Amino acid sequence: MAQAKKLVEAITPMEEDFSRWYTDVVKKAELIEYSSVKGCMILRPNGYAIWENVQKELDRMFKETGVENVYMPMFIPESLLQKEKDHVEGFAPEVAWVTQGGLEPLAERLCVRPTSETLFCDFYSNIIQSYRDLPKLYNQWCSVVRWEKTTRPFLRSTEFLWQEGHTAHATAEDAEERTIQMLDIYAEFCEKFLAIPMVKGKKTDKEKFAGAESTYTIEALMHDGKALQSGTSHNFGDGFAKAFDIQYTDKENKLQYVHQTSWGLSTRIIGAIIMVHGDDSGLVLPPMIAPVQVMVVPIAQHKEGVLEAAAKIKAGLAGVRVALDDSDKSPGWKFSEQEIRGIPLRIEIGPKDMEAGQAVIVRRDTREKITVSLDSIAAKTLEVMETMQNEMLERARKHRDEHTFSAVTYEEFKDTIANRPGFVKAMWCGEETCELKIKEDTTATSRCMPFEEENISDTCVCCGKPAKTMVYWGKAY
Amino acid sequence: MAQAKKLVEAITPMEEDFSRWYTDVVKKAELIEYSSVKGCMILRPNGYAIWENVQKELDRMFKETGVENVYMPMFIPESLLQKEKDHVEGFAPEVAWVTQGGLEPLAERLCVRPTSETLFCDFYSNIIQSYRDLPKLYNQWCSVVRWEKTTRPFLRSTEFLWQEGHTAHATAEDAEERTIQMLDIYAEFCEKFLAIPMVKGKKTDKEKFAGAESTYTIEALMHDGKALQSGTSHNFGDGFAKAFDIQYTDKENKLQYVHQTSWGLSTRIIGAIIMVHGDDSGLVLPPMIAPVQVMVVPIAQHKEGVLEAAAKIKAGLAGVRVALDDSDKSPGWKFSEQEIRGIPLRIEIGPKDMEAGQAVIVRRDTREKITVSLDSIAAKTLEVMETMQNEMLERARKHRDEHTFSAVTYEEFKDTIANRPGFVKAMWCGEETCELKIKEDTTATSRCMPFEEENISDTCVCCGKPAKTMVYWGKAY
Repeated sequence: MAQAKKLVEAITPMEEDFSRWYTDVVKKAELIEYSSVKGCMILRPNGYAIWENVQKELDRMFKETGVENVYMPMFIPESLLQKEKDHVEGFAPEVAWVTQGGLEPLAERLCVRPTSETLFCDFYSNIIQSYRDLPKLYNQWCSVVRWEKTTRPFLRSTEFLWQEGHTAHATAEDAEERTIQMLDIYAEFCEKFLAIPMVKGKKTDKEKFAGAESTYTIEALMHDGKALQSGTSHNFGDGFAKAFDIQYTDKENKLQYVHQTSWGLSTRIIGAIIMVHGDDSGLVLPPMIAPVQVMVVPIAQHKEGVLEAAAKIKAGLAGVRVALDDSDKSPGWKFSEQEIRGIPLRIEIGPKDMEAGQAVIVRRDTREKITVSLDSIAAKTLEVMETMQNEMLERARKHRDEHTFSAVTYEEFKDTIANRPGFVKAMWCGEETCELKIKEDTTATSRCMPFEEENISDTCVCCGKPAKTMVYWGKAY
Repeated sequence: MAQAKKLVEAITPMEEDFSRWYTDVVKKAELIEYSSVKGCMILRPNGYAIWENVQKELDRMFKETGVENVYMPMFIPESLLQKEKDHVEGFAPEVAWVTQGGLEPLAERLCVRPTSETLFCDFYSNIIQSYRDLPKLYNQWCSVVRWEKTTRPFLRSTEFLWQEGHTAHATAEDAEERTIQMLDIYAEFCEKFLAIPMVKGKKTDKEKFAGAESTYTIEALMHDGKALQSGTSHNFGDGFAKAFDIQYTDKENKLQYVHQTSWGLSTRIIGAIIMVHGDDSGLVLPPMIAPVQVMVVPIAQHKEGVLEAAAKIKAGLAGVRVALDDSDKSPGWKFSEQEIRGIPLRIEIGPKDMEAGQAVIVRRDTREKITVSLDSIAAKTLEVMETMQNEMLERARKHRDEHTFSAVTYEEFKDTIANRPGFVKAMWCGEETCELKIKEDTTATSRCMPFEEENISDTCVCCGKPAKTMVYWGKAY
């Protein structure tokens, strides 16, 4: 038990240093390992298995709306990247360049994709001819590279895994509808599977994606009161179509430009899971996304029948992702390891339990111990997982709501940002100058103009001119 | 129907030009599209969906043996690539080099992974300390890049998708066992799901992987009599462990080097599916791997009740990957499209069928038409798919066996290679000089030393010296 205690003590308490707590958790839960390539991390089995579950559920949700998967090259010729002016300005400063292939220098250098709009546009210009070819609803699961100066596991790394959907539509209305539909899917997925409530809204022009007409976002609040942009969906209008000449003949035989969207969600979302649900003992995984949902731990496993009883519990949990820890470690050590890894439930069974025909279910989040008869353990396990999932979402929502403030005057705004970690709802005139001043004065940025607006006041919190819209402001990762 | 005929005629007949037939099929079946990046192809939905099914089944088979998935960086620092001498010699001439990140030139250039042995070794040297940490059974699904001068869709492209497994073991025996185990999984997967029989064997030293102690392979025979290396499994012994200093303390507290393996299978396997099963009308997909197994086609769909009856058939095929083509194309056009795409079964239903309470199942491979009552259509569909899957494997095996020859003398050998496309079984002395001479004289290479040996003669087919082993020889992709 002394050793087990040491295992947990290796995690810096949240209150002491949230940032160190975070890196301790990703390392101790064996989610990642640093690699010898600057800014690139290794996703270890515990980390990658979370991503596999994210992929599985999101991919299913995408396909239910008609999306098909493809795979595009990882390289983009420089001339292709340069075709859309705003886009290249946004990305060129942070891409990696391949200049040599085999033993020869390349005639034209290639960038490693930071995102694939230009490749999809080039592809679409070749395969879209008629209105019958629309819509195109393509997605790919891949990694992208952005040359970042400072990196943090999951939140910002040179290479990261994501999905990027790219669609082409006949009309502006169809494109806008798809943009919102995918944002809704992201939000629904995060709430249902990750137990993370999202604020849905639109980015200001300053914060939108390079080349987009409008960018929509889902924003989550982390335990330390900082915001995390967790997924984005962009409507490009016909800007890329004009730059790449993607035209189709409509039913009246007239040439029309397509309207496009793109939308992406990355391994960054694992950072959100950690920072929304984790505690001082480590990771806490929502049951719906946990690679291992239940760990069965035999107590005094050398005693006759204990291992068999534990194995029987495991075998009885049909449809549950369950494992049995029958290693020669002490139970205390096993408990600590599983806590660090965030396994939602553990089921303990020892000789005394066996005598009483029962076992003990322990919840990772509340540490509640539930004694349950062996007859009803399968049903009870499912019930406890469901309760835990729901309560995790409710706790996250409560935390977010308790850390969402309003400000009418600029003094109030600055004071809130400085002293009360969280979102601040405040009105805005629509001018970038106010966004810049707020960032300069407080380091907070506009997170989004929410779909659910409120009228906090009639004037911009910064300049006092008439307000156009409400904005969620906050410090962000 | 004239248009439908044109659709099929666009495919060059196999006998006329096998190579053009192949590229016509990959293009017309919409498996791939060429991209603006030299040597890189776009996997379109029809092609990527096959890969998704390959992934799903293989990944399940891997995990059943304890394999876990991870994700490693796509970049390898030059100094890391150089740590194992044979390995770097094999790969350095064909890698892409990143020399600039963002606006800065890099201090050390990075290669885009051609394979990830060096990254896994670096990782293992950090995380393996004790015998308790072994074995490590990691795999990743990713893309790799090899700067190829001439490329062909699926068979050889600059970037391709694959899985690469990398394991570390306490003993040489464990490593050898895992190497063979994974080869067996590949062969089993190809036979069961792809209906492709494989010759399992060991590569000669000349043909083995750069840095491996031994390489095992599965070799398939294509319709034109050429061989295709379809998956490989390598035993590295402790060579990489010594180069990267991967040591563990054993139970006696002594330092030992680990023993390692790696094994990979790529999108190349889609090329094998095309070239083993395809015909002059296009692709023929084995039901077990087909993204769409059954396409329901309404005949005279404007007539009352036809579309409803077709939809009812679709709804009744539980557990089958079924689609309904209710587009406004003619039935003949639909048939041709589905033939090109290789959809295993189509079910036709029209007004006359409805009157008779029946539908017609048509097999893609034999074009056999099976009239079946609507009551039993679900059971019959499953039965026909199973028969088709089995018969496709048997046909492929028969084709291979009929195109597998033996040769005792060198004249016989050269004559067979020149005039009878297929494998040639012949004895070999074990000297690389004979392999080189055979390649020079015939363009054939040693495909493998099969696990199932036969004693064709006592002397090397090339030099006449005493034979050491039997070899499968052949021209190869």
